[in-house]
Amino acid sequence: MSKDLNPWEGLLEAAESGDLDRLEALLAALDAEDRIHALAHLDAEDLGSVLSALDPDRAAELIEQLPDSHAAEAVGELDPDEAAGILDELQSDDRADLMAQLRPRDAEAILTAAAPETAESVRSLLQYPPDSAGGLMITEYAAVPASWTTQQLIAHLQGNVDRYAHLAAQYVYTLGARGELVGVIPLRDLVLARPNQPLSSLMVPRPLSIPATLPLDEIFDLFDGNHFLGIPVVDDDAHMIGVLLREDVDEARVNRAQSDELKSRGIVGGEELRSMPLYVRSSRRLAWLSVNIVLNVAAASVIALYQDTLSAAIALAVFLPIISDMSGCSGNQAVAVSLRELSLGVVRPAELLRVWSKELGVGCINGLILGCLIGAVAWLWQGNVALGAVVGIALALNTVVAVSIGGTIPLALRRFGFDPALASSPILTTVTDMCGFFFVLSFATFALDQIATP
Amino acid sequence: MSKDLNPWEGLLEAAESGDLDRLEALLAALDAEDRIHALAHLDAEDLGSVLSALDPDRAAELIEQLPDSHAAEAVGELDPDEAAGILDELQSDDRADLMAQLRPRDAEAILTAAAPETAESVRSLLQYPPDSAGGLMITEYAAVPASWTTQQLIAHLQGNVDRYAHLAAQYVYTLGARGELVGVIPLRDLVLARPNQPLSSLMVPRPLSIPATLPLDEIFDLFDGNHFLGIPVVDDDAHMIGVLLREDVDEARVNRAQSDELKSRGIVGGEELRSMPLYVRSSRRLAWLSVNIVLNVAAASVIALYQDTLSAAIALAVFLPIISDMSGCSGNQAVAVSLRELSLGVVRPAELLRVWSKELGVGCINGLILGCLIGAVAWLWQGNVALGAVVGIALALNTVVAVSIGGTIPLALRRFGFDPALASSPILTTVTDMCGFFFVLSFATFALDQIATP
Repeated sequence: MSKDLNPWEGLLEAAESGDLDRLEALLAALDAEDRIHALAHLDAEDLGSVLSALDPDRAAELIEQLPDSHAAEAVGELDPDEAAGILDELQSDDRADLMAQLRPRDAEAILTAAAPETAESVRSLLQYPPDSAGGLMITEYAAVPASWTTQQLIAHLQGNVDRYAHLAAQYVYTLGARGELVGVIPLRDLVLARPNQPLSSLMVPRPLSIPATLPLDEIFDLFDGNHFLGIPVVDDDAHMIGVLLREDVDEARVNRAQSDELKSRGIVGGEELRSMPLYVRSSRRLAWLSVNIVLNVAAASVIALYQDTLSAAIALAVFLPIISDMSGCSGNQAVAVSLRELSLGVVRPAELLRVWSKELGVGCINGLILGCLIGAVAWLWQGNVALGAVVGIALALNTVVAVSIGGTIPLALRRFGFDPALASSPILTTVTDMCGFFFVLSFATFALDQIATP
Repeated sequence: MSKDLNPWEGLLEAAESGDLDRLEALLAALDAEDRIHALAHLDAEDLGSVLSALDPDRAAELIEQLPDSHAAEAVGELDPDEAAGILDELQSDDRADLMAQLRPRDAEAILTAAAPETAESVRSLLQYPPDSAGGLMITEYAAVPASWTTQQLIAHLQGNVDRYAHLAAQYVYTLGARGELVGVIPLRDLVLARPNQPLSSLMVPRPLSIPATLPLDEIFDLFDGNHFLGIPVVDDDAHMIGVLLREDVDEARVNRAQSDELKSRGIVGGEELRSMPLYVRSSRRLAWLSVNIVLNVAAASVIALYQDTLSAAIALAVFLPIISDMSGCSGNQAVAVSLRELSLGVVRPAELLRVWSKELGVGCINGLILGCLIGAVAWLWQGNVALGAVVGIALALNTVVAVSIGGTIPLALRRFGFDPALASSPILTTVTDMCGFFFVLSFATFALDQIATP
């Protein structure tokens, strides 16, 4: 009978009938790609049923593969005890990511039901912003007294194989008498060490460490300039509290880049997946659209001031949307380059003038060419050279305005603490629309004798 | 005298006067962030002077920290022998990235001058597409006969400390008699092994491996679903030829996301940094703008068909750019969600109908609300309810059109092998502009008696 079911329907049916063996078999039959695809077809409640039917460790594995927001919604549907059981099985940084996505009340209920050490580990991570070293670090790491020998360390590792089995960090850290970080031993060096060598002679002393509050941009620069797989994180008292792994830094970088791309296309209220409820998707998108419609009306109100000119030369109406759109394109290219240079660290928010001077050249060349193109179109279409001149000069000037604003606004926004990926485009397009409409219509008013339709 | 120089001017001066000690001292005085920032102010030729003044290994370190395109331009300015010396010092995957960015003639000259094994390693990577396992893998890895004991392996590692010092991979691979991959040993297990244990009893046999031709999307899915730090890459004969590291997969993911964001803002011809020559920046941006101006003229030509209606009700001209822009916003939100779902693997190119049905709901709700808003603005402004109805209904309908096209076009483009991040927006805005202008102006023509300005 399950022959006719889609994979997700089969999974749901097995979960709801409590047939764990069949559920496991169905999941095992799907490769990673098909599994993610099938589970994406389940809404939060149905995905919750699947998670709750599975053993906690298998559920935790699935959660690591799913988009965070989808996983969090499903976990929010679970009984707190069930959710806590799954939480125990997750790696510390995945736990914190998941908890950060839950409604605070759900998160609190789950932490109350969780094992005390799990709850403590989550709370210690959640006290730091998600985009800081403390928010991104893992709390599973091997740290032993620097006074030990290699033999003691190896015996310790052998006695805790389970605990260290999934350690992604390839380092053992050594601590001083007061628990302070004093050294680091790459596993590779441990392989090559003599049996009874004191760790203090093997370790790299005074290793680089970072404070838990270090923000993401500085973390990116640090990992860019170095090769380490992980770096110890310390609290205000120089006590080690976690390890920040390169893979988690890279993941944060991917998230940043993807979230910037979503923002640039107007998805700004948080992740949207089509498995989410309609009202959530619709209202989040609408929040952004409402801001834009106000800005659009403001920009278009410039046109309303020139209705007489427009009536006299109706052909202008064809060119208003073109000038608006082309200026937006030119300006957004400059925004893209500034965002890129900011993220690479090759430009700083204070260098407005340098960026502006670099954009002016591009704006003049491209403005001239685009202006000539659109001017020629207007001239040929209406056989009116003055119309061509008005439209062409307006687009040329407005291209210079657009790249000037587009290049500098991300730096200015960053400098004043706003998110440039989010706010650059709306500000840009509003200003360039206003300027563009003003240029075309005021030049046309000036030259109305030549361009007015007889 | 150097007190008054900017850091980059100081670096250039030291390089050009051949004062290696001062150049090294100036570089060492800058932290990673300041170094990248200072070097970004040098054009290709000046950066080339700095690289050529440094020892090859120091130059290689700098290159790893710089944006690929900037580094490649500077290396292209160097004498091939100098460039080859630097190439020898780079890790294999960085070499291939750099070579792939050079003009083919420059790359060939450098490879001819490079050490034979370096040239061979680069050529073997360059034969695979940059976005495949073969193009992303590193060729530095430890592989030894499975017939060895742990003692033989450790002696081998000790005898080749330099060679393995920078091995990022945390695995030793074991090979069979014909050089085929037969097992993998995590370094961690080697730490815990008995001294004379045969590797064949220690290794994980029949490890997962991937073909060099595996494309990026499948690589992402594979690493998403698993925890390994690296995976062996094999050729058609099952011989191991490299290791694909998680950090390089993550880097490819960051590059993909950042390149998608650049594309969404109209930077499509390749990386642009403001250190590049003006004509390169200007002409690349113009290539994209020229396509857009043609599309814009095509869309606006719909307006030209309705000049009589526009003349009769000139207030409509104010709303044309608003409808064009708002539909673009709504459609691009749907594009963003589809691109996101495609990259997460939760939707497949064939699921057009499912996506469309999910977008219809959002389009109807948001279209209704936006239509009412803009209709109310039109009504209140002109005191003409018919004008409000024409504009409001047109925006409502066009919002549905926009989300329908925006949601499905990325899937359709992907299905037919086009890049959805690149082509979705231009197609979307052209079609929605045409539809939007047509809706407003044809409805207005129909209701012209009610809305014509007396």
